[in-house]
Amino acid sequence: MAKAEVLCIGTELLLGDVLDTNSQYLAQQLALLGLNCFYRVTVGDNVGRILDCIVTALRRSDILITSGGLGPTADDLTTECLAQVFNAPLETDQQVLAFIESLFAARNIKMPKTNAKQALRPRGADILPNPVGTAPGMIWRLGPEELALIGIEADQSGQWPVKTILTFPGVPRELKGMWEETARGYLEKTYAGGTIWSTELKHYGIGESALAEKFAHLLDLANPSVAPYAGNWECRLRVAAKANSVVEAQALAQPVIDEIKAGSGVTCYGHDGDTLESVVGELLSAQRLTIALAESCTGGLISERLTGIPGSSRYIMLNAVTYSAEAKQKLLGVSAELLAAHGAVSPECAKAMAEGIRAVSGCDIGLSVTGIAGPDGGSEEKPVGLVYLGLSVGQKTGEPLYFARTLRLGKRLGRNEIRWRTAQEALNMVRLYLISPEHLSV
Amino acid sequence: MAKAEVLCIGTELLLGDVLDTNSQYLAQQLALLGLNCFYRVTVGDNVGRILDCIVTALRRSDILITSGGLGPTADDLTTECLAQVFNAPLETDQQVLAFIESLFAARNIKMPKTNAKQALRPRGADILPNPVGTAPGMIWRLGPEELALIGIEADQSGQWPVKTILTFPGVPRELKGMWEETARGYLEKTYAGGTIWSTELKHYGIGESALAEKFAHLLDLANPSVAPYAGNWECRLRVAAKANSVVEAQALAQPVIDEIKAGSGVTCYGHDGDTLESVVGELLSAQRLTIALAESCTGGLISERLTGIPGSSRYIMLNAVTYSAEAKQKLLGVSAELLAAHGAVSPECAKAMAEGIRAVSGCDIGLSVTGIAGPDGGSEEKPVGLVYLGLSVGQKTGEPLYFARTLRLGKRLGRNEIRWRTAQEALNMVRLYLISPEHLSV
Repeated sequence: MAKAEVLCIGTELLLGDVLDTNSQYLAQQLALLGLNCFYRVTVGDNVGRILDCIVTALRRSDILITSGGLGPTADDLTTECLAQVFNAPLETDQQVLAFIESLFAARNIKMPKTNAKQALRPRGADILPNPVGTAPGMIWRLGPEELALIGIEADQSGQWPVKTILTFPGVPRELKGMWEETARGYLEKTYAGGTIWSTELKHYGIGESALAEKFAHLLDLANPSVAPYAGNWECRLRVAAKANSVVEAQALAQPVIDEIKAGSGVTCYGHDGDTLESVVGELLSAQRLTIALAESCTGGLISERLTGIPGSSRYIMLNAVTYSAEAKQKLLGVSAELLAAHGAVSPECAKAMAEGIRAVSGCDIGLSVTGIAGPDGGSEEKPVGLVYLGLSVGQKTGEPLYFARTLRLGKRLGRNEIRWRTAQEALNMVRLYLISPEHLSV
Repeated sequence: MAKAEVLCIGTELLLGDVLDTNSQYLAQQLALLGLNCFYRVTVGDNVGRILDCIVTALRRSDILITSGGLGPTADDLTTECLAQVFNAPLETDQQVLAFIESLFAARNIKMPKTNAKQALRPRGADILPNPVGTAPGMIWRLGPEELALIGIEADQSGQWPVKTILTFPGVPRELKGMWEETARGYLEKTYAGGTIWSTELKHYGIGESALAEKFAHLLDLANPSVAPYAGNWECRLRVAAKANSVVEAQALAQPVIDEIKAGSGVTCYGHDGDTLESVVGELLSAQRLTIALAESCTGGLISERLTGIPGSSRYIMLNAVTYSAEAKQKLLGVSAELLAAHGAVSPECAKAMAEGIRAVSGCDIGLSVTGIAGPDGGSEEKPVGLVYLGLSVGQKTGEPLYFARTLRLGKRLGRNEIRWRTAQEALNMVRLYLISPEHLSV
């Protein structure tokens, strides 16, 4: 099995100014490809130390993946150092230069001179395209001459080891885009050594340890393996299988996946890239229903998540963030009497908001949230973290259906976390209703 | 200045199952102590590779800090490996053993045999107490015998270098507790060498390379040092100074900070924890102004960001996400004629939306966004990434002021990125207006 090594370059990482999330992403991706990763090194913007790390890595690993140091400024040293290790001249890639210039031209800005540096690459290296940012990285498969320079020799049959360098910028979005578009496929082709295929089954409404307990008998399996992970107010079971091909690995994993799904019921909401909002979007589309939101304490978070799904304009027309009492009255028709009697944070107000936004928008479903996200504004009776949710659903004939939920999240969580958890619960309410209203009647 | 090296031990880190946050914490703490950190290495639970990393680190650094591998199971190898490097016998610390036993006794559980392992330490090492968890780490100041074993010699005057090993568990809470209670003080006493103080000046409206070019003369300074970093559609200049105390370091940095601020004008929007939304919130509060948003393609993102700031209910009453043409008409009073003549994605519609939401909400400022976030819905005339922004500001007497902006972000970015950049620009429009309307008239 081929060995990869990750080298993160940047003084800001060693000073702790930036949390390194690239390493985890790359580690997961390498594991998915069935590539070993035995060392990960972080080094600052210093030529001598970078050279040292490059040589050490290439002597003990087959694949060197660098992150960072590809920017236009003087302390971006990665390309330069790689060229230096192998005595390779740096050449300007005219196509890359033209592309970088065009990006600036599109914004009506003259390209700063320093950016020309980002079009340089050592002779012999190929471009690793960057679909998102300014500058590409490189894929450099080292030839015998280069290998000899760092003391690596051919084996007894005259065969040279296959050693490759891939460079990525430190910006996580760019690194990810480049990985997915080009690097993953390249490594799969070049170092194919069996495959690890995995899927994550995502759960809402059950904790990580309860999930682990429920499927305890699966956690000791070797292949496929099953492991629980905590998420952001949801959790996941990862099922991974090793085999010679994706198809074989999937076949190995399938019985376990089926067992988990059957045993989970509605707590399993989807897999891998699914989110509560994407699942809700799919259900709304499939059932040709529309939804409108009236948010108070979540301030637009639920709307932002639902509209983040491409095509959401099919089921969303109008959402309102009614922060003040006046806005709740004026826009949603919540009565002054109700507000005076129960307050804005009350089950009564949640109901009036849900029905109000449904009426105003003309949508099938009205979802409301009203609560106290803190840090101030709580009282003994209505503490920070108290949230009421309401779901009003119009019917062809007769009264609309109405479902309510109360969350008591506690002050300790903080504003952001209270908002996030409320959004999770709100989206899940809609999901459960769309699967079957029964699930909300409990 | 003494050099420290961080070694994270654990296969789970190399597989990406766990996000390593200890490294960032340790990096920040080392910087605060004025200790250099030139390398950070992560290695799996493998004796040979751990030994290799320990020796390499101690040859090139004065302080080796390990995290992980102190648990009771067979793959917890840190203590054992350190003993092996220096040929030191492992001895049971009776006090630690009694303490671990007492923890189990308190929970009415018999201590599993494997836990006795956590009371072992190499002869010569001291205990690094763990105020939070089960097992302590060690502080091991290496003597001449141990140093000689890894090829380190005394200097010409017979002086041996001061080299110390500190081991921590991988659990962030325990590592932190041990650092704060014991390790920090020990390192300060043993390697006292001043402090690094730093601040980040955040910029919007100028790219990283343009910023670097503008302040090129500062980037070569040694103390304070200045370095540019890219952010998420914004960028930062980090100013760091080393001195004997925080006060001295700040004094060293201040002239450079002042120069950057003076030279940046309005592109510098804040520092460190500031965000565009927090700065807008502060300006609105200070000027006692209120704002209302009418969002289309951003779907609630700007509302979510502004309401994420504690106390935002002082200046936000009502925001609307008017996704459909009907919602724009009904809620904001955009006329059917305007929509028919110019379409929903037009400067005219942005203006009508901004004025509409200001009127409906009764707020001082109305901010609107209408555009095409994609991936579908674009045309040749109105491509994905085209966004119009509008800012309507009521005046005590006379007509309201109106400011417009157009963004052409291109399809390549993707939906999320188009939404994010639009939100950045929208928040910055409000910021510039609140500093002085002049900045928007250009």
